[in-house]
Amino acid sequence: MVNNSNVFQLGVCDYPEHVPQDHWQGYARQQKALGLTYVRIGEFAWSKLEPLEGEYHWDWLDQAVNTLHVEGLQVVLCTPTATPPAWLIRAHPEILPFDKIGKQREFGSRRHYDFSSELYREHSRRITHALAMRYGHHPSVVGWQTDNEFGCHDTVRSYGGASVAGFQSWLEAKYGTLGALNSAWGNVFWSQDYNAWSQILPPSNTVTEANPSHVLDFYRFSSDAVASFQEEQVSILRDLSPGRWVTHNFMIFFSDFDHYRASECLDFPSWDSYPTGMLEFFAPDGTGEALKTKYARTGHPDLISFNHDLYRGLKGGAPLEAVSRAHPRTAGHWVMEQQCGQVNWAPFNPLPAEGAVALWTAQGWAHGADAVVYFRWRAATMAQEVMHSGLLRHNETPDRGYAEVKALEREGWTTAPVKTRVALLHDYESLWIFDAQKHSSGLSYWTQTLTYYMALRSLSMDVDIVHPDSDLSSYSVIVAPAITLMTETRAKNLEAAAEHAQIVFGPRTAYRTKSGRTFEEGQFGPLTPLVGGQLENFDSLRPSLEVSIGDHRAHTWAESYAPTTASVRYTYSSGPLKGHAAVLEHGNVTVIGAHSETLIAEILSAKLEAAGLAPMPMPEGLRVSNRAGKSLVMNFNEEAVSWFGKTLEGVSFTEL
Amino acid sequence: MVNNSNVFQLGVCDYPEHVPQDHWQGYARQQKALGLTYVRIGEFAWSKLEPLEGEYHWDWLDQAVNTLHVEGLQVVLCTPTATPPAWLIRAHPEILPFDKIGKQREFGSRRHYDFSSELYREHSRRITHALAMRYGHHPSVVGWQTDNEFGCHDTVRSYGGASVAGFQSWLEAKYGTLGALNSAWGNVFWSQDYNAWSQILPPSNTVTEANPSHVLDFYRFSSDAVASFQEEQVSILRDLSPGRWVTHNFMIFFSDFDHYRASECLDFPSWDSYPTGMLEFFAPDGTGEALKTKYARTGHPDLISFNHDLYRGLKGGAPLEAVSRAHPRTAGHWVMEQQCGQVNWAPFNPLPAEGAVALWTAQGWAHGADAVVYFRWRAATMAQEVMHSGLLRHNETPDRGYAEVKALEREGWTTAPVKTRVALLHDYESLWIFDAQKHSSGLSYWTQTLTYYMALRSLSMDVDIVHPDSDLSSYSVIVAPAITLMTETRAKNLEAAAEHAQIVFGPRTAYRTKSGRTFEEGQFGPLTPLVGGQLENFDSLRPSLEVSIGDHRAHTWAESYAPTTASVRYTYSSGPLKGHAAVLEHGNVTVIGAHSETLIAEILSAKLEAAGLAPMPMPEGLRVSNRAGKSLVMNFNEEAVSWFGKTLEGVSFTEL
Amino acid sequence: MVNNSNVFQLGVCDYPEHVPQDHWQGYARQQKALGLTYVRIGEFAWSKLEPLEGEYHWDWLDQAVNTLHVEGLQVVLCTPTATPPAWLIRAHPEILPFDKIGKQREFGSRRHYDFSSELYREHSRRITHALAMRYGHHPSVVGWQTDNEFGCHDTVRSYGGASVAGFQSWLEAKYGTLGALNSAWGNVFWSQDYNAWSQILPPSNTVTEANPSHVLDFYRFSSDAVASFQEEQVSILRDLSPGRWVTHNFMIFFSDFDHYRASECLDFPSWDSYPTGMLEFFAPDGTGEALKTKYARTGHPDLISFNHDLYRGLKGGAPLEAVSRAHPRTAGHWVMEQQCGQVNWAPFNPLPAEGAVALWTAQGWAHGADAVVYFRWRAATMAQEVMHSGLLRHNETPDRGYAEVKALEREGWTTAPVKTRVALLHDYESLWIFDAQKHSSGLSYWTQTLTYYMALRSLSMDVDIVHPDSDLSSYSVIVAPAITLMTETRAKNLEAAAEHAQIVFGPRTAYRTKSGRTFEEGQFGPLTPLVGGQLENFDSLRPSLEVSIGDHRAHTWAESYAPTTASVRYTYSSGPLKGHAAVLEHGNVTVIGAHSETLIAEILSAKLEAAGLAPMPMPEGLRVSNRAGKSLVMNFNEEAVSWFGKTLEGVSFTEL
Repeated sequence: MVNNSNVFQLGVCDYPEHVPQDHWQGYARQQKALGLTYVRIGEFAWSKLEPLEGEYHWDWLDQAVNTLHVEGLQVVLCTPTATPPAWLIRAHPEILPFDKIGKQREFGSRRHYDFSSELYREHSRRITHALAMRYGHHPSVVGWQTDNEFGCHDTVRSYGGASVAGFQSWLEAKYGTLGALNSAWGNVFWSQDYNAWSQILPPSNTVTEANPSHVLDFYRFSSDAVASFQEEQVSILRDLSPGRWVTHNFMIFFSDFDHYRASECLDFPSWDSYPTGMLEFFAPDGTGEALKTKYARTGHPDLISFNHDLYRGLKGGAPLEAVSRAHPRTAGHWVMEQQCGQVNWAPFNPLPAEGAVALWTAQGWAHGADAVVYFRWRAATMAQEVMHSGLLRHNETPDRGYAEVKALEREGWTTAPVKTRVALLHDYESLWIFDAQKHSSGLSYWTQTLTYYMALRSLSMDVDIVHPDSDLSSYSVIVAPAITLMTETRAKNLEAAAEHAQIVFGPRTAYRTKSGRTFEEGQFGPLTPLVGGQLENFDSLRPSLEVSIGDHRAHTWAESYAPTTASVRYTYSSGPLKGHAAVLEHGNVTVIGAHSETLIAEILSAKLEAAGLAPMPMPEGLRVSNRAGKSLVMNFNEEAVSWFGKTLEGVSFTEL
Repeated sequence: MVNNSNVFQLGVCDYPEHVPQDHWQGYARQQKALGLTYVRIGEFAWSKLEPLEGEYHWDWLDQAVNTLHVEGLQVVLCTPTATPPAWLIRAHPEILPFDKIGKQREFGSRRHYDFSSELYREHSRRITHALAMRYGHHPSVVGWQTDNEFGCHDTVRSYGGASVAGFQSWLEAKYGTLGALNSAWGNVFWSQDYNAWSQILPPSNTVTEANPSHVLDFYRFSSDAVASFQEEQVSILRDLSPGRWVTHNFMIFFSDFDHYRASECLDFPSWDSYPTGMLEFFAPDGTGEALKTKYARTGHPDLISFNHDLYRGLKGGAPLEAVSRAHPRTAGHWVMEQQCGQVNWAPFNPLPAEGAVALWTAQGWAHGADAVVYFRWRAATMAQEVMHSGLLRHNETPDRGYAEVKALEREGWTTAPVKTRVALLHDYESLWIFDAQKHSSGLSYWTQTLTYYMALRSLSMDVDIVHPDSDLSSYSVIVAPAITLMTETRAKNLEAAAEHAQIVFGPRTAYRTKSGRTFEEGQFGPLTPLVGGQLENFDSLRPSLEVSIGDHRAHTWAESYAPTTASVRYTYSSGPLKGHAAVLEHGNVTVIGAHSETLIAEILSAKLEAAGLAPMPMPEGLRVSNRAGKSLVMNFNEEAVSWFGKTLEGVSFTEL
Repeated sequence: MVNNSNVFQLGVCDYPEHVPQDHWQGYARQQKALGLTYVRIGEFAWSKLEPLEGEYHWDWLDQAVNTLHVEGLQVVLCTPTATPPAWLIRAHPEILPFDKIGKQREFGSRRHYDFSSELYREHSRRITHALAMRYGHHPSVVGWQTDNEFGCHDTVRSYGGASVAGFQSWLEAKYGTLGALNSAWGNVFWSQDYNAWSQILPPSNTVTEANPSHVLDFYRFSSDAVASFQEEQVSILRDLSPGRWVTHNFMIFFSDFDHYRASECLDFPSWDSYPTGMLEFFAPDGTGEALKTKYARTGHPDLISFNHDLYRGLKGGAPLEAVSRAHPRTAGHWVMEQQCGQVNWAPFNPLPAEGAVALWTAQGWAHGADAVVYFRWRAATMAQEVMHSGLLRHNETPDRGYAEVKALEREGWTTAPVKTRVALLHDYESLWIFDAQKHSSGLSYWTQTLTYYMALRSLSMDVDIVHPDSDLSSYSVIVAPAITLMTETRAKNLEAAAEHAQIVFGPRTAYRTKSGRTFEEGQFGPLTPLVGGQLENFDSLRPSLEVSIGDHRAHTWAESYAPTTASVRYTYSSGPLKGHAAVLEHGNVTVIGAHSETLIAEILSAKLEAAGLAPMPMPEGLRVSNRAGKSLVMNFNEEAVSWFGKTLEGVSFTEL
């Protein structure tokens, strides 16, 4: 029942419960006529399915699913657990999560539950079970989405209630003894030692910064709760709905849980792509006003493709130790919600440029998506999202995106795997510990990682984003922008990779141990032999400060190294690090200490050349991506661009 | 006893309880000599009047009122309910209101009560009754002010405590059934359906944005509580103090309750005018630094006059359906507190320019005020407001404003009604729903409304600000900048007005139903036939983006229309709406989709011409206003300006 | 046992509990070899010393102290009360403090206690007693530090819990009757009168601003609690550790308690000097980006020296009435923590320039420090401060500061007292009431005070910072930038000083009474005869506004005066105060109303000349300081500067 057509497909999110039943057949026919294959339904419909505890109302959903079936559409059905109804919350307020300052969050929107609430887990399993019993074998149901956008609105971590006992049990299971925990966290610092598990609370409302090791373990605990919540639902769905795939719709740059872990049990990951809102609202620290303005109506090409590459790689690029327990990958990734007009949730919500919806769809395909599902069919006429566009307007006339979808030519867009010899390493634990102590306001893990990714994309490279503990044997160039957390195992994996690949590390690599401390032997800890040097100093640069490395300018961050076996490739030429090493090279391994876009691009270009990968500098806003034997050239500029004798209209794509 | 002299009068706010009794007679004589008629007293004197429950101390107030009487001054007496004393709060902490995140607010300043507290209502009635019994027939008491500045410091809405049950009862009374409520709010969206009234809380601390329909009803409930609180006091005062008028002092741009409703039972409205603090602190979103600097010492002329025109129109421009239940209007509006020096509550509190106090007083008269009462007599030497000026300094020497009041010539300043054929429509419910989902940060209802108002004033028009459901029969040009909420009744009222008047609508007109949803048939809902077109798209513009309409530039917001019976008058010439209609015209009706100051002025000028109203462009900072057969020209520039051969000194006024 | 060598000494902060015991001897030998005299230990070691209540583990500390002793180092031992352990907090959560909005703060970092908790006081005395019993007579222990950085992370004031009853008792003890309190606070304003002590809470979560007199007394109460906490510990240490000195390490610009009071019982004050973090994080309001950039790697010379001069003067410059009860001063002040690399707690943490550590040390000596103790020996490899530098890196190699300490030449750096005839007056109560109602955002007490201090330093003056109630007989020029709070006693002290010294007052001088009201006779209250004039008006200037005084420009604040017996020396030449007095002179007394750096420098220069003090304008970034017969010239510029024929390298010092 999985998509075995090998052809890229389109779909749409719809909400039959939002409109009178007499609209349903007409909508389905119109969807089919538009060339859509899938309709995703049901992810917020709990109160409609079970208006009172145990009183199920299936009729309307039976009718909705049947209507779609009759009209030849395939259904992606969702568990409705992102929105526990009022009757459940008021009967059991202990389900509600707590915010960072320990205040209980309230019913009245969505995602108002603590992943650690055993009571909520029961209800999550119960409604999942009931839904799977009812529709598990329905011929039109081809797959399932669990819940909706885990983590949206900072809902992974709950700083009180059910999470308190959950965290304590998790710690006891992990450490066994308090001595082990005190030692791992370095609790001797500031007399933070504990004598009883019950003394340990989530790191909330502390007088000043909490212990980063405490924070790191709380993040791990919270992340594990998401993964086990996911697994419970998936297990039920697999039992009761054989032959269907299961996915979850992850969100742009969300990082409060380990997506590798949360994807293990899935058939493939999906994500929700909102390019303009992404740039306005979720862009990493340091994305300037100039970029936000230039790409206001198209989104930034690299921010979008980064998310495609990241989510595409969640299963294939997962840690080796997870491979055995992971459910086999049965298909490429999906875009489960694709912006097809205006969003409503950023501070500013500009109208997308003409052509943007088609461009985003094509880009999705080129970056490995097997399906793109538009959000949403008709713009909502009620409640929180009335100002969010759909393919149809409030008045049911086709909106701007509709025409672009209709006109889309998808000839030859098969679902062949994306192939590349370039990997970029990413790890959520490194992200957590990096961002827990930024040391330089505005420099986050994502900012640093994106800087390297954008350099690779501007050099025309296709990129796999994979975990540092994954199988790296197929890559010729491996870029590790910010793998701060280092272990012996990880170091060995990288050492092995360096046998056959160029590896480029960014600053703060191998700065932290597994428990969030620093290495007693200093940076690079167990990676030292591979790098051939050690950290001397880091310099946190306020926005008005820069340092030079020859013609290059570093901002925000600069670190210097004492080489042991490595050679110094670049040296600081101004600032307090003047004369000290900015870049070391040791065989196939390079470490870059300075945050400088031009320096990074220069070095990556050289390494790609060395690996025979023919980097080609792309003009601003122009990107090329390859899949299924085709090269797709995309112009995200609003103006036409000439390139190799070809003219690309503003906001358009073409095949080479 | 109402002011039947038909002559504009002056007064002052004084606090006899703040100074030793031996100062009172001297103050009164000095006030009389300065030409003042009224002294307002008592609005924060509860703990002095009733130091312990039921133990009234009238002597000092008897003495204070008598002293004023003897010296020939008239007293405006206030109910002291804005400051419940410590003994009341500590005995009944359930009176205290809750802030937006559900935290109880504390005693120690003012306005620390929840309008929905039945217990507080009892005490409010009790103290009002006692005061009215004592002074209701006193010959010097000519009128009453209820409470003080309803809504100051965000005190209309309480997100917990007494308001919870109050809100639930209010909803039950309004909707009858939960089905009706769920349907009106569109609670099917995100499973927000309720099964019991007790499940519904104020929209506080939700995980993400609350349902705007939920918000809208909570705002209505809170607003109604203000109105009924007001009515309770007014009813007592009318019973016990016959022949006296009752007013309330509203505040600059306050909008958390429906001032039309809260004014029904009054004789006339008053407001508190603080021009420099208004510009620094209360200016609508988007008022730039340049304007704040230029008018730092005078306030902006249009912000001030907008408030005059708004409060002047609360009774005359009220909804038709309210007219029958409204207490008849017995006089024009008042300024109950007029800044006469420096305020203390803005981030910066510059000294007013020389002449500003006189200018503000004259402007008040020209915009329909029957009296201007300065705040305050002597600057306080204790507590929160020691840095606020009065007519006297701390050391009792006359401060700068004193001399200006003394020198003021008021010859011929009668209290004739302001007459104009231009109306600007305003509605608090539209404001609430508009601002609940701005979609473009920085564009608020007030910003949009002010933009049209300022255009009218810059074209020399006198403006009535009236409710869209009011009697519009006397107007030739009606401007509706942001009437977002549309009903059948309202649409009919506008249709009738279009028979005889030019009507100009701004963007987002008729975007929402009464319950805060959008129309199933899209914008303009029931107004569609009148407008002759439909919404196509809206574009929310970040500050760095603009779109063109020929020579005009729109910023912040642009919407486009599909005409049905209307003609396209302006078309977008850049941006994603290029080639689409920016302005429709349909008979007497024009709708402007683009937020562009120059475009708005151009269209309004043409419409005013068409209505024979002779718009005249005014120089920056110069304004003209008409009353009682006089034309007052006011120069808010600090420099002299020549105009039609006349030279106006900086910060001055003259009669034409 | 006090330092009687009369030679400036160095030391370091170390944490033996953070590293394995086999490192201790090596560290001690290395410290000794580096020329260090002192090692400070133990200030956060409670959980290591007493892992469970009453179960003391002395062995490790015995060993640590003995190792230092054997290697010839002297120990500064700390009471560990800044970090009550988990077992104590979980057993007695009432120890935890409450933040400004009344939320309890949590365990998990440091300083999580309410100074008013009687229960915590018991434990503080108990652990202090136990420690002093054990080490009070140890030959290597030369002195004690109490607790650590009182007030860090806003921990002086607790707005709930133990502080509530404490505040009520304190008020009752101070005022005796509620009538006296109501009158002192002016509670008649806004009906704030109290009928019972139990009605009075800390000024938290009020609907709008709390009464500044209420605030002022709450600050006094909180400050007194710090002083009495300090006294309890000091009393135990004096009893059990005779012949040792006791100090406390105060922090940069901390002002939430009266440091004069908290120093009375000490032998001498210490402070913790972090020049780069200070500039980035603690610089007074209005310190612009340009200064923050220029001095990012050295700190600003005057901000650093201000803190030296302030802490140096805490005992010598204390109020006269405190002298009798103060413990005699036994030595000059210390820097107990001196930044010797990078800090980790500012938004940006740039690397110090080469030479900065030596420069700061030399500056410390020249400004009266008897010892400088570096923070810390080896950078921490665990918990909150891993990104903070030490003299050694994580990997135990010497970091940049180490070499500068090693190279430091201290020939002739004796600990003679700093001598100067210039005093700058400072008073914490004036600071509290000034900042409680700034009236002009961005102008704080520190900003105003620093402006005058920097003018004096830029004119090459050494400055004593002393209390306005202290002995002023030895000064020829006395500058009182912001002594807002005035009493009869203080006025008399200043009158006496004016007999022999030039006195210069800044704006807002003598604006407030002891209880935080204004004077009934207006500014300058009891100081009026000395000043010879009265306040007319003050003008709070938004950043975009300035007014002129001839060639000078005032920003932020301008006040004008009516002279009685004084002469007008400068007059405003623009703005609403045009033609009014900006500066009065009356015999030896000058009052400056305008906040203008150039005007202030011009007047101070003239007054210094008049006093025969030979002011010499210093180039930007260059400063001269004098001690022990030497003139130290310091260059805080990163570039070399030529001065009087001498070239100073960037970031260096030399002796004249």
